[in-house]
Amino acid sequence: MSSRLLPLLSLLLVTVLPPAAAIWPAPQSYTKGNTTLYLNQNIKVTYNGASVCWSHPSSTENGCCLNEELSNENLIHQQLPYTYGYSPSGASSKEIVQAGVSRALAGIFDSKFVPWVLHKPNSKFEPDVYAGQNWLKTLEIVQTAEDKPSAFKPLDNEVNESYNLTISTGGDVKLSAVSSIGILRGLETFTQLFYQHSTGTSWYTPYAPVSIQDAPKFPHRGIMLDTARHFFPVEDILRTIDAMAWSKLNRLHVHVTDSQSWPLVIPALPELSEKGAHHPSETYSPADIERIQKYGMHRGVEVYFEIDMPGHIGVVSLSHPELIVAYNEQPYYWWCAQPPCGAFKLNNTAVDNFLGKLFDDLLPRLAPYSAYFHTGGDELNKNDSMLDDGIRSNSSEVLQPLLQQFIDTQHSRVRKAGLTPAVWEEIPLDWNVTIGKDTVVQAWLGDESIKKLTGMGHKVIDSNYNFWYLDCGRGQWLSWENGEAFKTGYPFNDWCNPVKSWRLIYSHDPTAGLTPEEAKLVLGGEVAVWSETIDAMTLDTLVWPRASAAGEVLWSGRIDPATGQNRSQIEATPRLNEFRERMVKRGVRASPIQMTFCVQGEAWECEYVM
Amino acid sequence: MSSRLLPLLSLLLVTVLPPAAAIWPAPQSYTKGNTTLYLNQNIKVTYNGASVCWSHPSSTENGCCLNEELSNENLIHQQLPYTYGYSPSGASSKEIVQAGVSRALAGIFDSKFVPWVLHKPNSKFEPDVYAGQNWLKTLEIVQTAEDKPSAFKPLDNEVNESYNLTISTGGDVKLSAVSSIGILRGLETFTQLFYQHSTGTSWYTPYAPVSIQDAPKFPHRGIMLDTARHFFPVEDILRTIDAMAWSKLNRLHVHVTDSQSWPLVIPALPELSEKGAHHPSETYSPADIERIQKYGMHRGVEVYFEIDMPGHIGVVSLSHPELIVAYNEQPYYWWCAQPPCGAFKLNNTAVDNFLGKLFDDLLPRLAPYSAYFHTGGDELNKNDSMLDDGIRSNSSEVLQPLLQQFIDTQHSRVRKAGLTPAVWEEIPLDWNVTIGKDTVVQAWLGDESIKKLTGMGHKVIDSNYNFWYLDCGRGQWLSWENGEAFKTGYPFNDWCNPVKSWRLIYSHDPTAGLTPEEAKLVLGGEVAVWSETIDAMTLDTLVWPRASAAGEVLWSGRIDPATGQNRSQIEATPRLNEFRERMVKRGVRASPIQMTFCVQGEAWECEYVM
Repeated sequence: MSSRLLPLLSLLLVTVLPPAAAIWPAPQSYTKGNTTLYLNQNIKVTYNGASVCWSHPSSTENGCCLNEELSNENLIHQQLPYTYGYSPSGASSKEIVQAGVSRALAGIFDSKFVPWVLHKPNSKFEPDVYAGQNWLKTLEIVQTAEDKPSAFKPLDNEVNESYNLTISTGGDVKLSAVSSIGILRGLETFTQLFYQHSTGTSWYTPYAPVSIQDAPKFPHRGIMLDTARHFFPVEDILRTIDAMAWSKLNRLHVHVTDSQSWPLVIPALPELSEKGAHHPSETYSPADIERIQKYGMHRGVEVYFEIDMPGHIGVVSLSHPELIVAYNEQPYYWWCAQPPCGAFKLNNTAVDNFLGKLFDDLLPRLAPYSAYFHTGGDELNKNDSMLDDGIRSNSSEVLQPLLQQFIDTQHSRVRKAGLTPAVWEEIPLDWNVTIGKDTVVQAWLGDESIKKLTGMGHKVIDSNYNFWYLDCGRGQWLSWENGEAFKTGYPFNDWCNPVKSWRLIYSHDPTAGLTPEEAKLVLGGEVAVWSETIDAMTLDTLVWPRASAAGEVLWSGRIDPATGQNRSQIEATPRLNEFRERMVKRGVRASPIQMTFCVQGEAWECEYVM
Repeated sequence: MSSRLLPLLSLLLVTVLPPAAAIWPAPQSYTKGNTTLYLNQNIKVTYNGASVCWSHPSSTENGCCLNEELSNENLIHQQLPYTYGYSPSGASSKEIVQAGVSRALAGIFDSKFVPWVLHKPNSKFEPDVYAGQNWLKTLEIVQTAEDKPSAFKPLDNEVNESYNLTISTGGDVKLSAVSSIGILRGLETFTQLFYQHSTGTSWYTPYAPVSIQDAPKFPHRGIMLDTARHFFPVEDILRTIDAMAWSKLNRLHVHVTDSQSWPLVIPALPELSEKGAHHPSETYSPADIERIQKYGMHRGVEVYFEIDMPGHIGVVSLSHPELIVAYNEQPYYWWCAQPPCGAFKLNNTAVDNFLGKLFDDLLPRLAPYSAYFHTGGDELNKNDSMLDDGIRSNSSEVLQPLLQQFIDTQHSRVRKAGLTPAVWEEIPLDWNVTIGKDTVVQAWLGDESIKKLTGMGHKVIDSNYNFWYLDCGRGQWLSWENGEAFKTGYPFNDWCNPVKSWRLIYSHDPTAGLTPEEAKLVLGGEVAVWSETIDAMTLDTLVWPRASAAGEVLWSGRIDPATGQNRSQIEATPRLNEFRERMVKRGVRASPIQMTFCVQGEAWECEYVM
């Protein structure tokens, strides 16, 4: 009988209870009340005591004054609500904060977000706008320390992203942080406390008083985007950066070239993209790269680049065939993981000169906005050097010293440009190449790799393919001939099937099975967007909100400090539903994770409890 | 050595060979040449000898004259290239053909389609526009029989969709068909023969002379769309109908209600959607329904509806609790497959009166545009009637006669309204309910069900969940509590995991394992879009081009008549790549199936051949 009473009881409850406050990722500490406060354009914003001019591009109003500089600035993504932003040429903390305030407030006013949970069929929880409105009066922003020059291109652990946010029942908001990046994080949290009233005339939070103390668990929280197997237009990358900032993700790792294409325009070597891009329209100019990096910097998202080598570089053969072995060799699986094959010749002066020229052009342009440069190093096939006239061997004993020298040379160039190298795990683990203590190693082959790498003292980024590869599980890109080949391929699943659902992604702890000493070396993680079967059409739906699920693990931690236990799907699901709805309203085509019935109802109706 | 020579040889070849002509689905018979003919707005179009006024909405030009009626007609999807269409109030063959010609020609001119395969990095195959242009002069359309009244709402096998299409090197196009629907199919094929020149100033086909004889293998080629677990705005449904017509799919089965919501406005019972829709904005008015049906009719896509009963109907409890048992009972899995549970009371006068009123309102509105009405019947849980005060039993012996009577009564109402009933397979197979010989049975539980049903003499639609359920494989909608429940759910795959890739979908033959007699009873199939985790954000990317893969099996047949063997992925892949690209240009966010490198290159580079 209890099972039959429970629904009735709960139906009664949902008609009177306000919704849970859905902040994603969850703050470290969070208390709230149930007083409703309203927000409009009259809120007075200060930053370290001075008035902040914030601007609302869709109207002539703004927070304190008509500011020529702001109103003339480049409005990006004008067709999308909320995703516009300001790109001042400099990077002053004031400008960063001012633009952040503008995005946060304009976002609340423009996103028209009335969540499902507030207007379900059998409940009308919403404050009565006609019963008197108490208004937010001030948003007082205090930054407690001056930003270091590295604040906008930090190494992991180099910037303090923590913040404190309080809203008093009297209508005063206080946001304090050590860095301007921390202030951006707090502004995003502030945004997520507000709804538009369904009357369409008011914005409010029903949660005052609010007190939040927050800080990230891991400093490196990212997405790796492969722009070589499919090209992604600049606008799609900027939109991705917006959604990353909403999820408090802070690293966009662009895997910008691979054997399939070279979209990156290198003025000193124009033939690379002329011959190697899929099409002249599918290239990133130096101005595009700077635009992407600046856009990220303004949102606390550091954009860094990878040129994968010495494997995964076949495309260079189209312009420089003398530098490459095994280009598009067949059958491809003898020579590499995926067509077209192709690797740099090791121990080759021409290759070294080429890379000198490439890095001299590229790295000084990236360094103002990046702390890292990734030199790749995954899946190098030993057989390739069998075809290299200068080597003719697939013996590790022969190849290892050559690879060591290759990495040493390139990494010293990276360091000379003021950047810190990153590599895939195969470089130290499979090839026993010695790398610098500064070098970050990206692990993708699982927990065991992380254990080994941290055991060796390496700093690690976790991209465990069993959990955090977003491309997996939707079928192969390869075509099978009828007959025996067909039988071999059937049922045509890809190598990392199945799809990693948000629940699986959310269940993964990058430090699982590590000692405390080892765990300290895990800087964070990146979900991977390999693009064999992903392009601009599918980017949003495949990345969001799954990347946000990893985002919460990386920001809030797998363990919930309130319980000391793993975070619970039951607690997370309604928050992720609401966050996903908010993303859609902000112009990102995020996938639904539950049917509307579950989103509208109390979570228990769509839960499995034993 | 042969493996090393092959790439070089092939690179030479791709620079001189024109692309394969990519028509999707493949015509039954198709020969082509290599003469290039150009197309512009001066082409003279006739239909049974009379001039056809076709109209190009994005310009003031049209094919023969300024036609007030056409130019004033409702332009749908103005924001999308190619997806606009004309909705004359009547259904004359002339209007159908005229609008079809307008869509086909405007589509060629507007879609700006230059396929990847024509501008790959190492090949520049494209006709030289400056070397003289031979133009298409006439498009002569001949319909060889008058359309029967049923032509625009046919029962399966009631309309002849075959057509013949020829293009002479002299520039004369002849399209003949028995019905106007056949003409629409031929016009779509015509469209797929054309590209825009990359100079942007010309449209051309490089394939003249062309000779195509074509006809569908199966009369019923459809998509089932669930609008109850998530609502789909009318515009999204119209766009889906557009893409269906491009794929020569001809049945849109709208699973319009389920236990989760009732979006269908019934003027005689307004409380159903008032209480049962997710929100007042998430409803289909009678005008919406007619708009959708007419839009389909103009594109040769019959839209028919399902109200699933006597299970999957819990939502009625929100307005008529006296008619429903087990609404939202918990734990749900004792009472149904998914929350909220709820079934009609069997053997209940009030239920019967309710359905009389519902059908009297609804069916006369649907019948002008539909041949079928689907009464559902899947997954009825026997336990539900344990809670029915009038029954208090879960014994099949008690329930079967009641269900028989329920089906008999409702189906006779369906027939009285001029519609033919359809049901899910459980009604005859699990419940041994006797159904009329006219009734179509939709099978979803696999090949064995089809074998049984056709063995019993039933007409069958195939929706085998192992192949043709498009919702599968992206993870569960259910949330698991930490602890034992978490372990039970891990790794949180859904029941029909993995994702059905287009290759798996394409491998499925609805008549596999049947005798010729049994095979005749298979009318075709429908891919299913259950919407637990699909909404308007993800609809396009999850449906396309996977539904097109089923579309080719259903139109062209699993067997290739040219070889007598199963159709080959190797042959199909480049065609589907090109068709998918064309869909994107026409405004549908279809997913990529291969990386650009494979799409641009010769297919062999991304093939597995033994």
